[in-house]
Amino acid sequence: MKSMKAVVFKGKDRLSVEDVPKPRPRAGEAVIRITTTTICGTDVHIVRGEYPVKPGLILGHEPVGVIEELGDGLADLYSVGERVIVGAITPCGQCFYCLNGSHSQCGGALGGWKFGNTINGAWAEYLLVPDAKANLAPIPRGLSDEEVVLCPDIFSTGLSGAESGHIKVGDSVAVFAQGPIGLCATLGATLKGASLIIGIDSMSSRLEVARRFGATVTLNTRDGDPVAEIKRLTQGRGVDVAIEALGRQETFENALRAIRPGGTLSSLGVYSGKLVAPYQALYAGLGDQTIVTTLCPGGKERMRRLMAMIEHRRVDLSPLITHHFTLDDIESAFDLFSHQRDGVLKVALHPGAPLKTRAETMAGVRVDQEC
Amino acid sequence: MKSMKAVVFKGKDRLSVEDVPKPRPRAGEAVIRITTTTICGTDVHIVRGEYPVKPGLILGHEPVGVIEELGDGLADLYSVGERVIVGAITPCGQCFYCLNGSHSQCGGALGGWKFGNTINGAWAEYLLVPDAKANLAPIPRGLSDEEVVLCPDIFSTGLSGAESGHIKVGDSVAVFAQGPIGLCATLGATLKGASLIIGIDSMSSRLEVARRFGATVTLNTRDGDPVAEIKRLTQGRGVDVAIEALGRQETFENALRAIRPGGTLSSLGVYSGKLVAPYQALYAGLGDQTIVTTLCPGGKERMRRLMAMIEHRRVDLSPLITHHFTLDDIESAFDLFSHQRDGVLKVALHPGAPLKTRAETMAGVRVDQEC
Amino acid sequence: MKSMKAVVFKGKDRLSVEDVPKPRPRAGEAVIRITTTTICGTDVHIVRGEYPVKPGLILGHEPVGVIEELGDGLADLYSVGERVIVGAITPCGQCFYCLNGSHSQCGGALGGWKFGNTINGAWAEYLLVPDAKANLAPIPRGLSDEEVVLCPDIFSTGLSGAESGHIKVGDSVAVFAQGPIGLCATLGATLKGASLIIGIDSMSSRLEVARRFGATVTLNTRDGDPVAEIKRLTQGRGVDVAIEALGRQETFENALRAIRPGGTLSSLGVYSGKLVAPYQALYAGLGDQTIVTTLCPGGKERMRRLMAMIEHRRVDLSPLITHHFTLDDIESAFDLFSHQRDGVLKVALHPGAPLKTRAETMAGVRVDQEC
Amino acid sequence: MKSMKAVVFKGKDRLSVEDVPKPRPRAGEAVIRITTTTICGTDVHIVRGEYPVKPGLILGHEPVGVIEELGDGLADLYSVGERVIVGAITPCGQCFYCLNGSHSQCGGALGGWKFGNTINGAWAEYLLVPDAKANLAPIPRGLSDEEVVLCPDIFSTGLSGAESGHIKVGDSVAVFAQGPIGLCATLGATLKGASLIIGIDSMSSRLEVARRFGATVTLNTRDGDPVAEIKRLTQGRGVDVAIEALGRQETFENALRAIRPGGTLSSLGVYSGKLVAPYQALYAGLGDQTIVTTLCPGGKERMRRLMAMIEHRRVDLSPLITHHFTLDDIESAFDLFSHQRDGVLKVALHPGAPLKTRAETMAGVRVDQEC
Repeated sequence: MKSMKAVVFKGKDRLSVEDVPKPRPRAGEAVIRITTTTICGTDVHIVRGEYPVKPGLILGHEPVGVIEELGDGLADLYSVGERVIVGAITPCGQCFYCLNGSHSQCGGALGGWKFGNTINGAWAEYLLVPDAKANLAPIPRGLSDEEVVLCPDIFSTGLSGAESGHIKVGDSVAVFAQGPIGLCATLGATLKGASLIIGIDSMSSRLEVARRFGATVTLNTRDGDPVAEIKRLTQGRGVDVAIEALGRQETFENALRAIRPGGTLSSLGVYSGKLVAPYQALYAGLGDQTIVTTLCPGGKERMRRLMAMIEHRRVDLSPLITHHFTLDDIESAFDLFSHQRDGVLKVALHPGAPLKTRAETMAGVRVDQEC
Repeated sequence: MKSMKAVVFKGKDRLSVEDVPKPRPRAGEAVIRITTTTICGTDVHIVRGEYPVKPGLILGHEPVGVIEELGDGLADLYSVGERVIVGAITPCGQCFYCLNGSHSQCGGALGGWKFGNTINGAWAEYLLVPDAKANLAPIPRGLSDEEVVLCPDIFSTGLSGAESGHIKVGDSVAVFAQGPIGLCATLGATLKGASLIIGIDSMSSRLEVARRFGATVTLNTRDGDPVAEIKRLTQGRGVDVAIEALGRQETFENALRAIRPGGTLSSLGVYSGKLVAPYQALYAGLGDQTIVTTLCPGGKERMRRLMAMIEHRRVDLSPLITHHFTLDDIESAFDLFSHQRDGVLKVALHPGAPLKTRAETMAGVRVDQEC
Repeated sequence: MKSMKAVVFKGKDRLSVEDVPKPRPRAGEAVIRITTTTICGTDVHIVRGEYPVKPGLILGHEPVGVIEELGDGLADLYSVGERVIVGAITPCGQCFYCLNGSHSQCGGALGGWKFGNTINGAWAEYLLVPDAKANLAPIPRGLSDEEVVLCPDIFSTGLSGAESGHIKVGDSVAVFAQGPIGLCATLGATLKGASLIIGIDSMSSRLEVARRFGATVTLNTRDGDPVAEIKRLTQGRGVDVAIEALGRQETFENALRAIRPGGTLSSLGVYSGKLVAPYQALYAGLGDQTIVTTLCPGGKERMRRLMAMIEHRRVDLSPLITHHFTLDDIESAFDLFSHQRDGVLKVALHPGAPLKTRAETMAGVRVDQEC
Repeated sequence: MKSMKAVVFKGKDRLSVEDVPKPRPRAGEAVIRITTTTICGTDVHIVRGEYPVKPGLILGHEPVGVIEELGDGLADLYSVGERVIVGAITPCGQCFYCLNGSHSQCGGALGGWKFGNTINGAWAEYLLVPDAKANLAPIPRGLSDEEVVLCPDIFSTGLSGAESGHIKVGDSVAVFAQGPIGLCATLGATLKGASLIIGIDSMSSRLEVARRFGATVTLNTRDGDPVAEIKRLTQGRGVDVAIEALGRQETFENALRAIRPGGTLSSLGVYSGKLVAPYQALYAGLGDQTIVTTLCPGGKERMRRLMAMIEHRRVDLSPLITHHFTLDDIESAFDLFSHQRDGVLKVALHPGAPLKTRAETMAGVRVDQEC
């Protein structure tokens, strides 16, 4: 087979399922057959024309699959037929940025994010993986596609919000917005040992999931100013760490106001326009505060570590997968996800027939009524 | 009342319940009425003459109580009648060591450990607390004595093993020995986000508790060399972090052999004699390994943070309290604990009548048959 | 003697030399006789009414002096007649913030800064020092007042910019503005091992001093956009760390634009109004950047460490002291300093006759023509 | 030309200059023409049979040279004829260890050290460089071979002792042994901002160099127990950080005894036999001490950073190069270096004619009489 089916970005608001050439690996590269992938909020930004991507590119950056073909130099490390995932971010490990520890900025600003951004992505039957030695992560025996499909981006990103915030055991943490990334940030706060974990959103259904993911308190922004309530819950001081998981001026500013002197604002959101920090919230620059932004960490070791958390039953992300679709149904899947209909959190996309895992699934049918 | 009942160390193998003067606070000090305390492995070392303490001292370093009297300068911060705990370690916050971040070494080597070591301790009706502003930690509403009595030492120490090991989310961790401190180190590994958590001991009953405290795998040393099995579980590499929680050459050496190149050995044990590190286990000094020892962290903020973990139901330490005694029964309690009879993990000691919390309790009767 | 001379803040633009009661220490406090102090940029803000301080307060927060009287509990630690300095920030070491490592926020936002802000300051013959055990730092034998008078604020603050930026050996660093704090940040960059150190200012005389303090390159903002030149010097990437030492929107924004993806902006400036971060400079929140603000670190150990750097001839700050005045001449001194006339960097103020150190000095006469 | 001259290890105490095949690069590899290299203490261990290396291997791990040939995939990054250095450690950047931040343990224990250990080394006319993208570091314009030849190992290793010790500005530091690595550790202590820097050795000539490299105090072990003197210099407490740079039980034990409670022992030595830590020096395991071992950091970014320190005149290592030889004179060079004759610190080896840099040099003639 020389061609494959793929979802091609045709310009603002236009996706097309097309036949395109199947990729072949050069030295150090691999091709994997995609079995499951998903749609990310960033993909919505791209399709809506809010983040610039060149028309003609295959989108998608969350690949689960099977090794189809290996380029030179990889035979000792991997086997054709092995099940693997690959991070949304694929660092080379060898450039200025990678060797300085900024793997996600591989090769330059945001450069680690290649799939569906600067090279063809995972919404296809096959995917070419660059720097395969650094990026192919075998799936532990016994884990389903559905259990690991959120590792490449959502889990890695959400957790990194907690990590970059340097949450210490016993810290108080507020997470602003409880979409999939915010939920994984909430989960990350539990994994880093936070005590008081405050989940904030405007949708009560998401706050319900937040409590399952570890929030010890939830605040609905429709009920009033969350910052005032956070101050009340922390003897007037504010939290040790606030995580911003939406990408808006309002949540950024609230997160800044929510931290105590000496506290940290860990930002995961994608911003457009300028960000404004009132000097009072900054204590005029004298508050010993830290603001840190983080792009999703990738690379095979990050993926191995995240899957190890699932393998050893420390976390279970499957409640986040609420719907299944085939790749042909991308338009329906995208429509559902981008409009956040039907309680959707994340959808699983299958280039072939959807896998029958955990439960009988049907394309577009919600699989977990409780979530 | 000018006198009080206390357990006085009379020299090797001799404890005596005596009437002694009730303490009075000077400026910056406080006196608390003890409601619950416990016996620590260190107390066993002291009574057996293995750790030097001056005869005549009141032992015990794990106080739960009620503020009885406040010295000058504390009235704005605390109230008589407030329920508090105090850490086993009581740093001043103002000396060379404290201001350099080594609070447990307050004033000099091991100097933060004062109760039952260099000043009178908690096995008494009343306890004088030095540097009270830095050390009195109010108990959150709704928590029982039994729920918080392990914060002053065991929980703080065990957790510090995980903290000093700089466990990262997804790390593999092995904890050598699953006594109370080892169990809290295992719990600490979960709180820091470890994935594979290997609990090791020679008693199967303790390994059973280890699994409840978060061990994902347990190894009984009676079944063979744990290091070989640890290597097998980690693709031959060894764990990222090993925690030593016993204080013997054998466990130290095994923990060193168990870590991967680049790994960390976090040591909590109290050692006597010399420690030997075979150069092979050290990779001749070229393995990028770290060995770190930690004395229990104290101070009111440490205590507040640990109690916040309990308050927000992130941890439950009450399964570790297996027996209750009054202070008059110290000989029976000490005998039971020091010989590890009847499945004892930790005993609660009450200077007055034992508190009736969670379950009807009787002095010396095991309260949790399942643990 | 029951009264003393002091410089009292009388409201916007009004200072007055007055006779006021000499302070007496309570338990844990000390009184020192001031021999040398100085004027800080923050004092200028206060006098101009830009930072709110209650009229009637004695200003000044950079004390060098001799212990005059010790409150209870300090006799074992200090002696009357001992030469000491005290940090501008005087943490208690025992509160929520101090025990969480945020000593400069002691007791609440900015709370560590007490002298000349919330309690009487150092522009006086005598000064009451709170929490003296944590704050009195003996001056090493052989060091003059002039050599150590910048430790309490300027050196500590400037260095903290380099420390909070987590400069690593070999890092490239840009320091925006080369006033006294910026110069000490430049010096701090050398002490942390930076390689390329870019000093930026609009005054060529300050850039000359910057080169003496370790800048390997200097940029005059009158010559064009410093960010473009910084990018050119760093292969288009930007510096690893930028330090902001002025407190203006323009320098903040330039510092943000100057750092590479994965870089850190360490901010020392005092801001008024809002701060704006263009999303491009933030890489839309995806650049793995850190922004950190720092208030001057204090406490006796900080002071001891800074003086040790001077004692061991690792640094020499005396070139920054360009003029000497008596306290009676505060108006002239303030006028000179606040208008940055006559090449002034820092002035030394002496409540008594000016000390004759290193060179014959005269009030108001510039002492180091080369600097 | 298909063959080249090289120094081949023929077994214990036997080196031979031979004609061997010139290497050719595969994809991702490069071949460089060596212009300068040197002899390391590790090479002495190898030749003496104390460290196992397979006979037939070309030794040497400190290459300075010119790119001769590039394998596939490197043309966009490098040019034939470019001057480069390569670290003694050549990490791949893509394996388990590299992606977990343990680059020196690339592929397994000590695995980053390949040259002259597991693959052919730099004592040859040409050298094959693996993972060239991660390892070729261009030499900044204007720097001589002699100025950068110590970056691949000695400077990187010595500095890492200071880095792994987490020296903070103002720390007191003791460096045990002042051979080339110890001297670079002393230099590293200055680059990390230490105040009191104590250099220790038994040779007064080395202590003299130590003072030039930043030691503020030197102790000759012939004059008595250095630990007692270190305690005296630090008010009885011990230093914050001790660096071991020899690899013997005695220096290890002294370094451990020299650190204060809460201090760090950073070990660079290569040990044989077992290491013993007396429990008193360990404060029975309760002293909050850290012991850390470090293998030389490598990779092109490490090399770039070290060369940047030289380029910007922050350090000058050329005093360490005391003698020059051609490769043909390896026996004389090895004899001089291994017996530490004629005040030798490091020798420069040139496969071709010795470069005429800085001074007229002659093989075997000491070039810097002052050092």
